[in-house]
Amino acid sequence: MDKIAVFPGSFDPITKGHESVIKRALPLFDKLYIAIGINADKKDFFPIEKRMEWINQVFKDYSTVEVIKYEGLTVDLCKKIKAKYILRGLRTSADFEFERSIGQINKKLFSDIETVFILTAPEHTSLNSSIVRDILKHGGDANQFVPEGIDLSA
Amino acid sequence: MDKIAVFPGSFDPITKGHESVIKRALPLFDKLYIAIGINADKKDFFPIEKRMEWINQVFKDYSTVEVIKYEGLTVDLCKKIKAKYILRGLRTSADFEFERSIGQINKKLFSDIETVFILTAPEHTSLNSSIVRDILKHGGDANQFVPEGIDLSA
Amino acid sequence: MDKIAVFPGSFDPITKGHESVIKRALPLFDKLYIAIGINADKKDFFPIEKRMEWINQVFKDYSTVEVIKYEGLTVDLCKKIKAKYILRGLRTSADFEFERSIGQINKKLFSDIETVFILTAPEHTSLNSSIVRDILKHGGDANQFVPEGIDLSA
Amino acid sequence: MDKIAVFPGSFDPITKGHESVIKRALPLFDKLYIAIGINADKKDFFPIEKRMEWINQVFKDYSTVEVIKYEGLTVDLCKKIKAKYILRGLRTSADFEFERSIGQINKKLFSDIETVFILTAPEHTSLNSSIVRDILKHGGDANQFVPEGIDLSA
Amino acid sequence: MDKIAVFPGSFDPITKGHESVIKRALPLFDKLYIAIGINADKKDFFPIEKRMEWINQVFKDYSTVEVIKYEGLTVDLCKKIKAKYILRGLRTSADFEFERSIGQINKKLFSDIETVFILTAPEHTSLNSSIVRDILKHGGDANQFVPEGIDLSA
Amino acid sequence: MDKIAVFPGSFDPITKGHESVIKRALPLFDKLYIAIGINADKKDFFPIEKRMEWINQVFKDYSTVEVIKYEGLTVDLCKKIKAKYILRGLRTSADFEFERSIGQINKKLFSDIETVFILTAPEHTSLNSSIVRDILKHGGDANQFVPEGIDLSA
Repeated sequence: MDKIAVFPGSFDPITKGHESVIKRALPLFDKLYIAIGINADKKDFFPIEKRMEWINQVFKDYSTVEVIKYEGLTVDLCKKIKAKYILRGLRTSADFEFERSIGQINKKLFSDIETVFILTAPEHTSLNSSIVRDILKHGGDANQFVPEGIDLSA
Repeated sequence: MDKIAVFPGSFDPITKGHESVIKRALPLFDKLYIAIGINADKKDFFPIEKRMEWINQVFKDYSTVEVIKYEGLTVDLCKKIKAKYILRGLRTSADFEFERSIGQINKKLFSDIETVFILTAPEHTSLNSSIVRDILKHGGDANQFVPEGIDLSA
Repeated sequence: MDKIAVFPGSFDPITKGHESVIKRALPLFDKLYIAIGINADKKDFFPIEKRMEWINQVFKDYSTVEVIKYEGLTVDLCKKIKAKYILRGLRTSADFEFERSIGQINKKLFSDIETVFILTAPEHTSLNSSIVRDILKHGGDANQFVPEGIDLSA
Repeated sequence: MDKIAVFPGSFDPITKGHESVIKRALPLFDKLYIAIGINADKKDFFPIEKRMEWINQVFKDYSTVEVIKYEGLTVDLCKKIKAKYILRGLRTSADFEFERSIGQINKKLFSDIETVFILTAPEHTSLNSSIVRDILKHGGDANQFVPEGIDLSA
Repeated sequence: MDKIAVFPGSFDPITKGHESVIKRALPLFDKLYIAIGINADKKDFFPIEKRMEWINQVFKDYSTVEVIKYEGLTVDLCKKIKAKYILRGLRTSADFEFERSIGQINKKLFSDIETVFILTAPEHTSLNSSIVRDILKHGGDANQFVPEGIDLSA
Repeated sequence: MDKIAVFPGSFDPITKGHESVIKRALPLFDKLYIAIGINADKKDFFPIEKRMEWINQVFKDYSTVEVIKYEGLTVDLCKKIKAKYILRGLRTSADFEFERSIGQINKKLFSDIETVFILTAPEHTSLNSSIVRDILKHGGDANQFVPEGIDLSA
C-alpha cells in the first residue's frame, strides 16, 4: 500500500525551515501533499496563488510532491486523499506542546492517522512564517529566510 | 467555616476535561461556584445562556455546585461570595506557566485566596474549549469532547 | 468522611517552601500526614530523626499535622492510613512535568487517590532541599532557606 | 568604544519588573535607550506620550538613560544609534523560548548585535504589561504593579 | 533502497509505551532494529538476555522487527547496519528537549541520519522504564505498565 | 569601578559553545575570570590541569581573561575577587529553569551579584560537556565540538 502523507500549514510564506523538513522527510513517503489550509478567520499576508506558486517552484524537481489547498479539518482531507500520515517539523518545546495537542485530537477524530515529526535544523530553530511577515511589515528584508529563488519583495 | 471555591472560565463550551476536574475536586469543598466570566473583549461562540444551561445539566445531581456569571476581576467575585479557593485543572507545562502567573497575581490582589490545582486525566490533556470551537468552525463533529448528553449541533 | 492527605517527601531538610505550602493547604484537610519516605537507594544528608524533629518543631502548634516515616509506595501508605489526597507544591514547569507523571502513575495504581497542588510563593520558586544541601556542602550558611528556629549548623 | 544598549518594548505601561531589570543592568552600559516600538498593528492602551512621560519620571535621576520611540525593526534602530546590545529581562521559560527566537533572528539580521538578558526578581515573575491592562479593563487597581509615583487611574 | 530504522534504548524493561510507538511506526520502514545499548556506566535492573527475550516475545508476529544489542555510539551502529532512520517516541516537552539535543548531535556525527518521532499515546505519557523500576523497588506490582504477557515478578 | 565577571563551570572539557559565549560577552567586562569549580562529589573526566591548559590556549590572545580554579560557593569566590557579575550562556528552556534557580539563590546569598546571560549560537544549542564525554566514552571522535586546536584524544 502506498505511504501517503500530508504536510498541512498556511505557508504564508514557505520558509527555509519548511523546505528543509520536507526534503529530509520525503524519502519516507511515496507521495507527499503540501496542503495549504484556507482559514476564513485568519487574514492572508500573501495571496494563496502566490504561496502555491512559490512552493511549486521549490519542489519542481521532486516528483512525489504535490501542492494543494483545502478547507475543513485536516483529518477530513487525509481521509479523502487516503493519507495515513501527517508530517510536521519540531523546532521548540513550545512547538511540541502545541503539536502534541493537535496530534492527539487528530488521532481521536481519525484513529488511522499518525503524525510523524522530524527536527528542524538548528539554524532554523528561530524561524517561522510569522517572523518573516513581521520583518516585512517593519520594512526589513527577509529573503535570507525563504528558499533560494524566492523574492518576497517582487 | 465553609470551604467555598470558584472555578472560573469561559466554558465556551464546557468540555469533558472541565467535567472530570470539577467532579474529582468537588469533595474538597462545601460549595463550588462554576463562574462564567463575561469578557467584553472576546467574542462568544455559544451564547452565555446556552453555556450555563449545559453546565447546569452536567451537574444537576451535584447539590454543592452552582453556576453563575460575573463581570470584573475573579478575586473581586471571590471576595463578594466569600470564596477562599480558586480551582483550576492543569494539563500541560504551558498551562502551568500561565496559571502560575494568574495565581500569583490573584494572591497579590487578595492575599486570602489560594489557587488549588488538580491534574486533568491523561486522555483529556490535549483538549480545551478552543479546540472544540475549531473543530466546529471547520465543519467537524466535536460531541465526543463534551460531556455526555450535550449535542453541540443542536 | 474525614479528608485525609499525605504530603510525601524526603525533607532533607524541610525548607521555607515546604512550610509555606503546607500551612496554606492545611485548612483544606481534616488531617495531614507529612510523610518522610525511606529510600534505601539515596544517601541521607541529615538523619531521619533530625528531619522529623525539625518538622515537628515547625508544626507543633498545628493539631491536624502528624509527621510519619514510611517505606514502599506512597499509594500503599495512602491506602493504609485511608488518605484520599496527596498534597504537593508546584514551583516550575519542570516540577510540573515531573509531578504530573508521578500523579498519573499514582492514579493508575490507586484510582481513589487525587493529587492536589498549590503554588509555592514567588520568593521560594528557586528553593529546594537539594540546593540547601549544596550550599552546606560548599561551606555556606543556608539558615535563611529553612523555617525560623531551625539551625542547620547545630 | 562606548557600550550602547537598547531596551525595546511597548511599555504599555512600564511595570516594576521593567524598572528592576533596567536599574540592575544599567552599570553594564555607558548609555541605555529605552525604546518604545510604534506598532501599527497593535492598539495602544495608554497613549505613547503618557508612556514616555512615566518612564522619564522613573529614570529622571539616571543620566545614562534616554527614552525614545521608533518605527521599523529593532536592529535598524540599533544600527542607527550605534547600539551593539539589546537588553531584555527573563521571567519564565515561555519568555525564554520567545526571546531566544527574536534574539537569533536579530543576530541574522545584524551580526554585530548581542542580546543580554538578566533575570527579573522573583516577586515580578508573574508580572507583565498585559496583566496590568487586564486588571484595569476589569475595573481593578493595578498601581502596586507599576513603579512608585505612577498613578494609572490619574 | 530499503528503509532501515533503529529504535535505540535500554528497555529495562520494555513498556506499553515502547510497544505502542513501535507498532504504529512499523509500517513506515522495511526493517526496524530494536537495539539495546550496553552501557558500562549504568547498572542493569533486568539482565540483557531477559530484556531481549521479552521484546522478542512482544514482536514475535512482526517479521520486520529484529532485536539486537550494541556497544558504542548509536550512529556507528546505524552506519554498520545501513540504517538511515532513528525512531523515537515523544511523551513530554522535557523528552523533546532531550531528544532534540541527541538528534542534532547524531546529525553532526553522521549527516545521513534522520531521527523520526511519533507521539506516545496519551495514556502512556507518564510511563517510562525508570518508573516501572521504581515501583518494583518499592514492592509494587507494575505488570499493568508492560506489554501483555510479560510478568515482571516471574 | 571595574566591571569584573566570573564564568563558573566545570569545563570538562570546554566546548565550542563556551568559547562562543565567552568571546561575545567579553567586551562587556573589564575582566573575566573563567572559574573551574572543584567538586569533591563529581568524578572528573579530564584532570583539572588539562582543562585549565586548554582554556588558557583558547584565550591566550585575550588579555582580560584569566583562568582560575576554586572551591566553595561561587558567590564566595565573587566576593573575594570583587566580581559583581556572573556570566552564563543559555541554550534551552531546561537550561533557563536551572539557571534561574541558581541565579535567584545566588542573589539571596550575595545581593550585589547579577547574573548576565547571553544566547548560545543556534548551532551549539545541543552541545554541552556531558555530551562530549559521552561520545568519548562510546569510542567516538568529539573534536568537532571543542575549540580549534584542542585534540581530546591526545
